[in-house]
Amino acid sequence: MSVSEQNIQIELIKEKAIANAQDLINNNHITDLESKTNGLSLHEESSYLFDPAIFSMIKTSEFKFQYDKFELMKSSHSQENLVDLGDDLVLRPLKRDDFGRSYMNLLSHLTEIGDVNQQDYEKRFDQMKQADNTYFICVVEDVKNQKVVASLTLVYEQKFIRHTGSRGRFEDMVVDVDYRGKKLSKLLLDVLIQVSQILGCYKISLECKDPLRKHYEQFGFCLEQGQNYLCRRFI
Amino acid sequence: MSVSEQNIQIELIKEKAIANAQDLINNNHITDLESKTNGLSLHEESSYLFDPAIFSMIKTSEFKFQYDKFELMKSSHSQENLVDLGDDLVLRPLKRDDFGRSYMNLLSHLTEIGDVNQQDYEKRFDQMKQADNTYFICVVEDVKNQKVVASLTLVYEQKFIRHTGSRGRFEDMVVDVDYRGKKLSKLLLDVLIQVSQILGCYKISLECKDPLRKHYEQFGFCLEQGQNYLCRRFI
Repeated sequence: MSVSEQNIQIELIKEKAIANAQDLINNNHITDLESKTNGLSLHEESSYLFDPAIFSMIKTSEFKFQYDKFELMKSSHSQENLVDLGDDLVLRPLKRDDFGRSYMNLLSHLTEIGDVNQQDYEKRFDQMKQADNTYFICVVEDVKNQKVVASLTLVYEQKFIRHTGSRGRFEDMVVDVDYRGKKLSKLLLDVLIQVSQILGCYKISLECKDPLRKHYEQFGFCLEQGQNYLCRRFI
Repeated sequence: MSVSEQNIQIELIKEKAIANAQDLINNNHITDLESKTNGLSLHEESSYLFDPAIFSMIKTSEFKFQYDKFELMKSSHSQENLVDLGDDLVLRPLKRDDFGRSYMNLLSHLTEIGDVNQQDYEKRFDQMKQADNTYFICVVEDVKNQKVVASLTLVYEQKFIRHTGSRGRFEDMVVDVDYRGKKLSKLLLDVLIQVSQILGCYKISLECKDPLRKHYEQFGFCLEQGQNYLCRRFI
């Protein structure tokens, strides 16, 4: 191949990379049946709930708080981006085998979880993954102890209104009691706020009990005058 | 085929129908890659956002209000269940070609919709459909005028907590100004409350402005003491 041919090829690769990034930003990466079917095999290859490549687009300079460490690293099993937080802690998407890393036990600190076995966990994981572009569960793992120690869920909701816009919802924040005071809750918020912006949300919201209001207000969440949150419980 | 063979075949068909219904109730109808791939071709056949078969499970005796008419009928194009409301009004899932039935114009009565053309609408419709078991947009069409005149969205959110439970959220309720006073808003609420129960939600919630609180309280929605809804807007 001549030098000029090589240059053309490099330009093509560059163009493709830019198009892919733009595609991800616009949340257009799955648009038709063909690309969905392609997506299936990709999904099968990875055990992550969502593509960790999105972490490479996060700007730490825009974080509300500063953290000891926040360095992109490659997963030991693949070329996917994870985040090294120091102290043997890694930030990443939820994985299909996190049942074995005490994920359900972590959630039991938050609320009633009931009797969920590994099969139930994997089935729900698969269902979440089949709901393309909906569930962004971000966790922190203590890799030394092989234990998930913090979790926050971003639920991405697509709309027709607001230029076929989208909104995000934060759900089920929990930090293991032995890992509190490390700003992991703040870090998960800083990360998923940026993820929701990258995905193009025009707003994000959450529900919380009175004592946690100040915690979330630090991140720009606020009560809105005249807006009511109403609930009906079946059980 | 002998009579006994026919009976056996009828029994098998019955068993399959019951199993399918149970499957739908348990929300297990898409559980693995194989069934998902099968699902894709089914999705392509139908232009509905979700399977209208769920309407056949609705019990009108459990409605909060009574309506002039609520009769299951078959779609003219398929064997799928739609609901005849009388006065040329039909209740059904949103369809891929509802852009041509003034759907975006209907939404513009609710909030800012921006400049959304048919291609944008169809792309967003496809994305919602690819998010399996997430978007249940129920509409009322005036079939004489080929116009969508009311819409309510149920967003179904799967969880790991509460026995791998799920919750529902009601979004973007709107009724065409020329069709108010026909209890279409109440009907959509009655229908989607039951759909959320059939899907197994442990709770449903919504956000609304002060003047609409009483409307939703009629359906058992209420403010919860000490619970705060916080929002952060990016635009």
